[in-house]
Formats: sequence, C-alpha cells, structure tokens
Amino acid sequence: MSDILFQRQQIKAMAHRYRVNFINCLSGYKSANLVGTADADGHTNLAMVSSVVHLGADPALMGMVTRPRSVARHSVDNLQAMGVYTLNHVSRNMVPQAHQTAARYPREQSEFDATGLQAAWVPQFAAPYVSDSPLSIGLRLVEIKHLECNGTDFVIGAIEWVRLPGQALQEDGFVDLNQLDTVSVSGLDSYHPGAPSIGRFHYPKPDLPPRRQ
Amino acid sequence: MSDILFQRQQIKAMAHRYRVNFINCLSGYKSANLVGTADADGHTNLAMVSSVVHLGADPALMGMVTRPRSVARHSVDNLQAMGVYTLNHVSRNMVPQAHQTAARYPREQSEFDATGLQAAWVPQFAAPYVSDSPLSIGLRLVEIKHLECNGTDFVIGAIEWVRLPGQALQEDGFVDLNQLDTVSVSGLDSYHPGAPSIGRFHYPKPDLPPRRQ
Repeated sequence: MSDILFQRQQIKAMAHRYRVNFINCLSGYKSANLVGTADADGHTNLAMVSSVVHLGADPALMGMVTRPRSVARHSVDNLQAMGVYTLNHVSRNMVPQAHQTAARYPREQSEFDATGLQAAWVPQFAAPYVSDSPLSIGLRLVEIKHLECNGTDFVIGAIEWVRLPGQALQEDGFVDLNQLDTVSVSGLDSYHPGAPSIGRFHYPKPDLPPRRQ
Repeated sequence: MSDILFQRQQIKAMAHRYRVNFINCLSGYKSANLVGTADADGHTNLAMVSSVVHLGADPALMGMVTRPRSVARHSVDNLQAMGVYTLNHVSRNMVPQAHQTAARYPREQSEFDATGLQAAWVPQFAAPYVSDSPLSIGLRLVEIKHLECNGTDFVIGAIEWVRLPGQALQEDGFVDLNQLDTVSVSGLDSYHPGAPSIGRFHYPKPDLPPRRQ
C-alpha cells in the first residue's frame, strides 16, 4: 500500500466539501442514533446524530456533540426546555428515513411526520422514542458543555430507562447489536450493517497474552 | 420481539460487571482507535480508546473521552506534557494486540514493546504512530474539558497530519473504511469487522425523498 501524508496546510487548502467528507471519515465507524425530543406543547422532533459516546456506567451517562448551526438545534432547544430526550438505534430498515431527518425541516414540522417513523412514549417521560427502533434510551439532561474552540456543544445525559428486545440481552449484560440489526455510519452519508463479532476478549492482564472468551 | 423496559432503579441495582457490560453497549457500534503518546524522554505509550468523535472539519478537530482511573491516564499525562498525540485505526489483524494495550502495564513499560505493535514517527512530531495501523492522525492538544459529573475528561485536539493509503481515498474526500479493514467495538470487548456500505445517500432536502448516490 502506498501511503499519503497530508499536513495541516494541505488539509486547510482542501475544497470545503472534500474536507468535510474527509475529516468526517477519520474517526472510523460511528454509532448511528436518532435524538427524539418534544417541546412544551408536545410537538416532536427527531434528528440524526453520529457522535454519541459512552461516558460512564455508574452513574450511567452518555454524551453527544451537537452543532449550533445544524438541524439538531431544534433538538437542543427542546431538550434544554424539557430536560429530557431519547436516543434510538438506527437499524438497517430505518436508514433512508433516519438520514432524511437531517434535512432542514421548519421547526413546526416534525421529522416523525415527514419521514413516517413512529413516535411512542414512556409514561411520565416528556420525549418521544422511535418505536421502529430496536433499542431506545431515555435520558435526563445533566449538563451542556459549550466547546468554545468551534462553537459546538457537548450534551451530557443520565440514563433514565432503556428499552430493548429481551433476546438481544446476554447473561452478562452484553447486548448483541447484530440481533438488533443496528447500523454504523462512516463520513456523512454512508451506512454500514453490523457484522458478526470476531470474538469477545477477556479482560487483559499484563502477564497474560490476549485471550478470546 | 418481546421488549424489556429497564427503569433507572433497576439499572442502579444491576451487579457491577453486568451494568458495565450493559451500559457500554448502548451507544451502538463504537470506533476503535489507539492513542499514541510519548513522554519528554521519548518513552512511548499506547492505549485503546472507543470514544473518539468528530468535532468539526474547519478547523479540523476531534474529541475523546478518557477516564481518570483508566490505563489511559499515562496517555493523558503524556499528551498534556508534550501537547501532541496520535490516533490510529485498529484493523482486523491488530485486534488482539490493540485489546491487550488496555492491560494495566506499569508506567515504565511501553505497550508497543509489550504487544509487538510497531512505533513510527513523523518528523518534528513528538508522539509515535502505529505503523501497523492503516490510518493515523497526528493531533495537537487544544483543550481538556473536565466533566465534573463523573470525573472523566473530554480531550479536544486539532488535526496536524493524516496518514492513509492513497487507494482508500475517493474523489470527493470520502475514505473507504472497508479498504482499511478498520474494525468497530461493541461493549468493552467485542470487535466487529466492517461490512460493505449499504449505500451513500445524497444530502437530504425537505422536499425530496431520500436518494441514494
């Protein structure tokens, strides 16, 4: 393989769209989730996000990056106002609709209505989940860290509930994403089905070689 | 499919290891990267991280979550001291060694030496990359945001250089991760090969249905 080395000045000089595609691919495969929110009147909103990360298990916390100028801003307004939101895995059959939620719909139009994805509600929880999704998470807003370096926000939420099919949950708490048919994203617009695991590994120890379970 | 709904109190009551497995699976497929660093004496360190996210393309920025108590702390010490670090995609043939870097090696032992992964250097850049990796990124530390909610850190870096095989780079800047054989992670210990894209989609418009490229 013949390697290329791009230096900062070459990256800076790339055409805008080329650089956006390029930089968006660099982190590797990204999770594909839909953020579900509602405003005080119950008007729903749904937005694609590829930057959800695990923050910790106890307390159970998740983070995600949102951009001020993006369509996800309606989501941020809603989750700030209501204090809750959901994350919903995108499965293979949902990909076209999930991608479509990123279109710049006016605030008064729900992406649920526009795409045909179905909203559902957990009692006493003021954000909708996507009933087409195999796994949904209800989160309560903990904090929004503003990232001054580029004007994005890092949204931190505490897990209030999790909905998933029982058969995907294994004896040790591991969730089999292949059974959910969850996809991943690369770059801005490429979706990838899950592939069977090449194996789970034991907790690594300095004095032992890597061991498959 | 028969769904289960776990509420917060049930999650709180899970056995520690069960909850760690469960919560780590919820974000979906995660990127698999190795963080390469060195101290002022050139002693190298390498640590697995599954929380790298894209922050923006101009300026080109990436973020990652690290935990204070984790083995990645040597990495944070180094990148704070030297101001630079690398991220390196984990490809399928590197999985056992990459997983092994998470073992609690003493500070004086390099995970490069312990695992057999090869360190290489870009001139004038004080952090090693992994020459076995198909794609490496050199970053300059911009900021570390401490997340008081659980004591983790969100590390923000600016991209200084990118190294990748030319044939994986497409005409529009998109990088074909399948050609790199980049893997993803689910949970703490399960690795998944990439699967061919089910398609790239056009930029979505409110008045048009989803369109494949």
